Amino acid sequence: MTEITATEREMGTAFLPRFDAQGLLIAIAVDSRTREILMVAYMDEAALAKTRETGLAHFHSRSRGKLWLKGETSGHFLRVEEIRVDCDQDALELRVRPEGPACHTGATSCFYRRLEGDGLERVEA
Amino acid sequence: MTEITATEREMGTAFLPRFDAQGLLIAIAVDSRTREILMVAYMDEAALAKTRETGLAHFHSRSRGKLWLKGETSGHFLRVEEIRVDCDQDALELRVRPEGPACHTGATSCFYRRLEGDGLERVEA
Repeated sequence: MTEITATEREMGTAFLPRFDAQGLLIAIAVDSRTREILMVAYMDEAALAKTRETGLAHFHSRSRGKLWLKGETSGHFLRVEEIRVDCDQDALELRVRPEGPACHTGATSCFYRRLEGDGLERVEA
Repeated sequence: MTEITATEREMGTAFLPRFDAQGLLIAIAVDSRTREILMVAYMDEAALAKTRETGLAHFHSRSRGKLWLKGETSGHFLRVEEIRVDCDQDALELRVRPEGPACHTGATSCFYRRLEGDGLERVEA
């Protein structure tokens, strides 16, 4: 197999996801309507395949070391409407329709606090 | 030093960034006006400190193994207006004002292609 060049990966039309040394890609889930960033997690090859196959966001849990269907316990699935890939194909943007709060804390988005001075302040997204 | 509990990290007002085993956090840069995701990269403790100190996004380059001021060669700095942190404090959302295209390819955003079938299609962001 020939080496994939940086130019092919960056400018081409072939989807050539670049998993890191741990076999992972970054996946950022964004609400397709509000454009709010809901959460960020990792995908391995299996999670990416399952996401494409089912249309529901799957990730790889680093702490549990396994495939994780987002919403499998809460019912708060993320329906994937579009997948974008970055220049070097090591990160994905998932444009999703969330079926409930994306954060396990009950917040719409995991990014519910902002840095204010040296502390955090809760924000409404 | 006492252990930080998950509840303190998730619900508290203390900024307690959680660097991974490689000493890194995910940092997502978003255009504060358009809400477009511009790029995603990693920050180590030094990159985070420099970003907070200067107001310009700094990252840690995994490939070069060093601190990287975004825009240091291109002049396309990202001026950080707000920093949000996610529930478990291992990822940051930087709301920025970009001084030029964020992507080294010249695109506004690194996420300039979407998955369409098995290939990629260029999109205007």
